[in-house]
Amino acid sequence: MNIRILVTSLMLVGTSAAFAADEPIQPIKPPANINLGMVELGKKLYFDPRLSKSGFISCNSCHNLSMGGTDNIKTSIGHNWQEGPINAPTVLNSSLNVAQFWDGRAADLKAQAGGPIANPGEMAFTHTLAIDVLESIPGYVREFKQIFGKDKIDIDQVTLAIAEFEKTLVTPNSRFDQWLLGKKDALSAEELAGYKLFKDSGCVACHNGPAVGGNSFQKMGVVEPYKASSPAEGRSAVTGKDADRFNFKVPTLRNVEMTYPYFHDGAANTLSEAVDTMGRLQLGKKFTKEENAKVVAFLKTLTGDQPSFTLPVLPPSTDKTPRPQPFAKK
Amino acid sequence: MNIRILVTSLMLVGTSAAFAADEPIQPIKPPANINLGMVELGKKLYFDPRLSKSGFISCNSCHNLSMGGTDNIKTSIGHNWQEGPINAPTVLNSSLNVAQFWDGRAADLKAQAGGPIANPGEMAFTHTLAIDVLESIPGYVREFKQIFGKDKIDIDQVTLAIAEFEKTLVTPNSRFDQWLLGKKDALSAEELAGYKLFKDSGCVACHNGPAVGGNSFQKMGVVEPYKASSPAEGRSAVTGKDADRFNFKVPTLRNVEMTYPYFHDGAANTLSEAVDTMGRLQLGKKFTKEENAKVVAFLKTLTGDQPSFTLPVLPPSTDKTPRPQPFAKK
Repeated sequence: MNIRILVTSLMLVGTSAAFAADEPIQPIKPPANINLGMVELGKKLYFDPRLSKSGFISCNSCHNLSMGGTDNIKTSIGHNWQEGPINAPTVLNSSLNVAQFWDGRAADLKAQAGGPIANPGEMAFTHTLAIDVLESIPGYVREFKQIFGKDKIDIDQVTLAIAEFEKTLVTPNSRFDQWLLGKKDALSAEELAGYKLFKDSGCVACHNGPAVGGNSFQKMGVVEPYKASSPAEGRSAVTGKDADRFNFKVPTLRNVEMTYPYFHDGAANTLSEAVDTMGRLQLGKKFTKEENAKVVAFLKTLTGDQPSFTLPVLPPSTDKTPRPQPFAKK
Repeated sequence: MNIRILVTSLMLVGTSAAFAADEPIQPIKPPANINLGMVELGKKLYFDPRLSKSGFISCNSCHNLSMGGTDNIKTSIGHNWQEGPINAPTVLNSSLNVAQFWDGRAADLKAQAGGPIANPGEMAFTHTLAIDVLESIPGYVREFKQIFGKDKIDIDQVTLAIAEFEKTLVTPNSRFDQWLLGKKDALSAEELAGYKLFKDSGCVACHNGPAVGGNSFQKMGVVEPYKASSPAEGRSAVTGKDADRFNFKVPTLRNVEMTYPYFHDGAANTLSEAVDTMGRLQLGKKFTKEENAKVVAFLKTLTGDQPSFTLPVLPPSTDKTPRPQPFAKK
């Protein structure tokens, strides 16, 4: 971009751009510094149910990229139809999270990716068995070698590739971001009023930054205690500190219209209910029906461009590939 | 195409084209006469787990388009992790089938599409509840209205749209088809020898036509009885005729490298095993190890271009949408 065009662009966005710099929410940036080969491999792994014991459950089963990166179920369905203990958080924009899982027990996406594969209540496999499967598939062997330059596949390569794919799952260009970037008519008066309420009521104390959340742990139930329908105790399970009980990672509100139901226990079915509960329990504030509707209208402007890619075709198993065991008793 | 180019093209394919016309297998044609709007709608429905009681199982769960249009499991996993009675047949090229399901109980793709939604062992929903869900989602309401021009969504529209999408799931351009269409070096000597064996041994009696099968019902176990691990009795369940017991639709061999395990009960894990069993039970022929390898090499040339499309983004549920009941006791 030459200087004249740059200056013209800045003049065009004018005061809005200066304004946006003061906002507690920043626009989502498209992903940068991406290894495209690793993304293509990670995408296949993300969609491959052969990383589960049953051969039926993939990352995409519970973090469904057709559905806002979640499963839209209160708590997820794991191996043998086990009921999960917690609501599946969206994978969208998860690269912006301070840590992964509701309790932050994984430092980053790579550390997260291995968890569900080996969790007996989720994909119920082991890392060793997953590698055995991948090693038996020439299409994978070649692709791993091309990307990592090694003769053996290992779980670090698997989780690194999945994490690289997940880094691409950001959702820029929401109407709210268009407004932040200077398109003044991107939001309606009601939506803007909702945003003002969101700021003035204190929601932004926790829901801020590009992901509108995801960057801190906070207690669920500050003013009033929260009666969870989940046994999860939050951050204290990681830190061992009693003071961290019921501290959970603040969820991102990006694409929140698509990521129902809400809260770590998935107890809130609607945005309206979630806004009402958050207002009362976290802020000691009872939103009126009209205020609630305005905040909800604002929240719906946070839906960005969903990841768009061709459904991957997985390299087929061979005669040597261990077969899935969906109905094995043990 | 003008006449001169046409004549030149015909001269280029030369004798092979004339030869191919005498072959018992014809090339797969790309889909024609397709309603693109209906395809886009049907694609969404195909990927939408909200057509199941659990909100977890979609058409793509068992007919996975990343995996040859099947689930690569012996028998499928249904609602509440129920074990299905039969191997999920591939959806690829299913528009070429004489009828749908292994026993042909559905006349066409439209008639098939409604089955799994309401099957208590599969998606475990009802058509009425599925329509209630769709009617509650404005994105769907608009799209159905745009396509069908009616104010109400009904199950006929749903199954028609899914069927239209499925009509696009054909796989032209396999190496075998390239050979049929005149590319003489598309097949190796071993693959050609395998094809000759496939014809000379009588496999083509049932596995013929563009889908290399799918166009007749035949008895499983002609020369020797087949000891099935499935209770399915085949065509007689539809016709009520004892003579039709263990008659099953001959499966397509297109993309057969990807559609393991094999047979209606999924009992054969490998192509080699399937070829051996078919030779003995259907033809009274014991293929040598070398012959078996040649037939398998030929079969692997039947893998065509897999359907390539952008993963659909589903319109989100609303406050009015009935929520899935994955763990409901009844």
